[in-house]
Amino acid sequence: MFNEFLENVRRMGPLVHNITNYVTVNDCANVLLACGASPIMAEDIGEVEEITSICNSLNINIGTLTAATIPAMLAAGKEANQLGHPVILDPVGAGASKLRTETALQLMKALRFTVIRGNASEIKTLAIAFLTNSTMAGIVGGTKGVDANAADSSTEENLDSVVAFAKKFAEASGAVIVITGAIDIVADSEKAFCIRNGHPMMSRITGTGCMLSAMTAAYLAANPHHPLEAAAAAVCAMGLCGEQAFARLAAREGNAAYRNHIIDEIYHLNGKGLEVGAKYEVR
Amino acid sequence: MFNEFLENVRRMGPLVHNITNYVTVNDCANVLLACGASPIMAEDIGEVEEITSICNSLNINIGTLTAATIPAMLAAGKEANQLGHPVILDPVGAGASKLRTETALQLMKALRFTVIRGNASEIKTLAIAFLTNSTMAGIVGGTKGVDANAADSSTEENLDSVVAFAKKFAEASGAVIVITGAIDIVADSEKAFCIRNGHPMMSRITGTGCMLSAMTAAYLAANPHHPLEAAAAAVCAMGLCGEQAFARLAAREGNAAYRNHIIDEIYHLNGKGLEVGAKYEVR
Amino acid sequence: MFNEFLENVRRMGPLVHNITNYVTVNDCANVLLACGASPIMAEDIGEVEEITSICNSLNINIGTLTAATIPAMLAAGKEANQLGHPVILDPVGAGASKLRTETALQLMKALRFTVIRGNASEIKTLAIAFLTNSTMAGIVGGTKGVDANAADSSTEENLDSVVAFAKKFAEASGAVIVITGAIDIVADSEKAFCIRNGHPMMSRITGTGCMLSAMTAAYLAANPHHPLEAAAAAVCAMGLCGEQAFARLAAREGNAAYRNHIIDEIYHLNGKGLEVGAKYEVR
Repeated sequence: MFNEFLENVRRMGPLVHNITNYVTVNDCANVLLACGASPIMAEDIGEVEEITSICNSLNINIGTLTAATIPAMLAAGKEANQLGHPVILDPVGAGASKLRTETALQLMKALRFTVIRGNASEIKTLAIAFLTNSTMAGIVGGTKGVDANAADSSTEENLDSVVAFAKKFAEASGAVIVITGAIDIVADSEKAFCIRNGHPMMSRITGTGCMLSAMTAAYLAANPHHPLEAAAAAVCAMGLCGEQAFARLAAREGNAAYRNHIIDEIYHLNGKGLEVGAKYEVR
Repeated sequence: MFNEFLENVRRMGPLVHNITNYVTVNDCANVLLACGASPIMAEDIGEVEEITSICNSLNINIGTLTAATIPAMLAAGKEANQLGHPVILDPVGAGASKLRTETALQLMKALRFTVIRGNASEIKTLAIAFLTNSTMAGIVGGTKGVDANAADSSTEENLDSVVAFAKKFAEASGAVIVITGAIDIVADSEKAFCIRNGHPMMSRITGTGCMLSAMTAAYLAANPHHPLEAAAAAVCAMGLCGEQAFARLAAREGNAAYRNHIIDEIYHLNGKGLEVGAKYEVR
Repeated sequence: MFNEFLENVRRMGPLVHNITNYVTVNDCANVLLACGASPIMAEDIGEVEEITSICNSLNINIGTLTAATIPAMLAAGKEANQLGHPVILDPVGAGASKLRTETALQLMKALRFTVIRGNASEIKTLAIAFLTNSTMAGIVGGTKGVDANAADSSTEENLDSVVAFAKKFAEASGAVIVITGAIDIVADSEKAFCIRNGHPMMSRITGTGCMLSAMTAAYLAANPHHPLEAAAAAVCAMGLCGEQAFARLAAREGNAAYRNHIIDEIYHLNGKGLEVGAKYEVR
């Protein structure tokens, strides 16, 4: 199944509109090209609706949000919703500042997201904000900047409760929820993929989460009728490439080489490789 | 001849002012350093004229234009024109949105460009807009986001007509026109270089066009009396480095490694290598 | 001693708030992760104080400053000062435009910097501006864009006078002054480290200075009681990694590979390696 989802991306070559941060934007563009999609970045309010209209999906990432880009995110998102394009939200740093938590919440209220992807701290913060309709300081979790707090991570011990939480948030939000970490969870209201691909060193590169969100937007565009499974396929693909890239690391190579290897693995990954390498169970 | 143009860049070490997009800006800076130039990026209206005045050429790229950067592009361009500095326009995504097409047209009307470089779809869109003084939706061509539409590309079959078109647009605009694709065209009103360097995989990296525009700005600065030939030399150099970088790709290397190899090849390219490797004919 | 400073960064994993340029921001983030810290980039006035409050240090870099980011730099800096967090200023391009020189001066007057790091031309420009309280054109030195003018560099011949100048500027500003170049100077009012690590090829990569400033912010956060020595350790670490990365360069590798190797060397550098490789004398 994942086989086909990956090949559909290469066959279709979807055009993905990204409103994203300037830290990892180049890697996001190269990951989209590596997986067979085409990127376009556009954030001026004067063009975002038109750009979204010629694209196949929209990736909204709040990693370096500003007063100017928030209205552009809303305008592009509304247009994408109207056209029925998949839209993904990456709430980078939700919980690290009121502006980020509130903006993510505002986007969730104004738009219909196909997928929301973040680390455990970001998703926890956002879920509490959404379910209680509140972003007061007290509920802001243990986010460590843009990285997850170890205490929030999914482990074999808390997996059932994280899965239940993800399903509940998926039901309430109407979005597929993706929580990435040691074990990745991809859930809609009824079904959750628990994914054991990936490597701890991925957290030593900036932007592996951003890259995954961009790639997920491509998978959603090419597989519009299977958002849950397409998102799970993208998560497995990213994790698998992280494993394969780690296996290739030479003695003195570090996180810069690792970043390049991951993108290169995405470039070469084919459907069969993904089918064989994907490690998941359904709960 | 190209030999000398390349060596002049290394000898002079021109300082190039870039107002460019945040997707590929780092690669543009490293390409400028690789070819022997120095980059400076500055986009605030409060400093662009002064920065341009201490530089040797100006590179304007609309890849992530905003309401704030458009006036800065105009101000810097006017200053560069006044000082007689070479100015290059990279109309990224012209045709993908009204804002991009209109901004590119506005820049062309307000400024005198030494070179305009884009893919076939961008240049076609811009030429029609300029020649008809109109940007209505109907004339917007087949741009696929920031990538060229295959139908617009130069091939052996349509080469004569593309050359004629490029010469006509060069005459009307007063700029050297560079259309990059499978065959690259570099034309003024009377003479066109048809260049067969390059490799198809270059389109699998974000920003090879942006990098070429930045490098062209360096070649123009170091060879001010030969804009046509200097631009052709830069296009050959980029394509040749794309070929040589491809030849070096190891088994599992993909587009991330390829990006690095291209910049590294630019770093090592010397005049003799360019002279031997350049593949062009004049029409 | 440097041994311990490096290991403290890995032990603490400080969170560093960066308000920086979009040219080298990705490399700064990966360098912070490589040395054991975590980066967060945030520049909207609506969140910078809050982001700074959850971080351990603040890195202000004016490489692509805009009218919108200057107030954010001031607000974040005031908050960091109030909380007693280390703050570093990288006055990129001071001397290249009035806006940059004036902004750097404005930041120095409004904020208390732990460290100010730049190349010889930037620091010279800033020192004259600060000591004379003037930024008139006449005093602007020989900055070549964002690169140092060779005439300003530290050499064995002028070292004593540069050291005396750095100590004087350190005394007047209250900051540790770091002047990077062929010989790096790290000085407070009484003591100066003269560092002979590094390699000339580092100037052929964009952002080695920016990366060093970011890493210095991490060293300051993890060693709050020894700002002079912590900054010197960071400078030695960067230079040493530049040497080791150069030694690893293969035949056709250029500045792109070199950038990756430097970050990879930072990733693997440990306290013992730094202790053995650091080359400095105290004057």
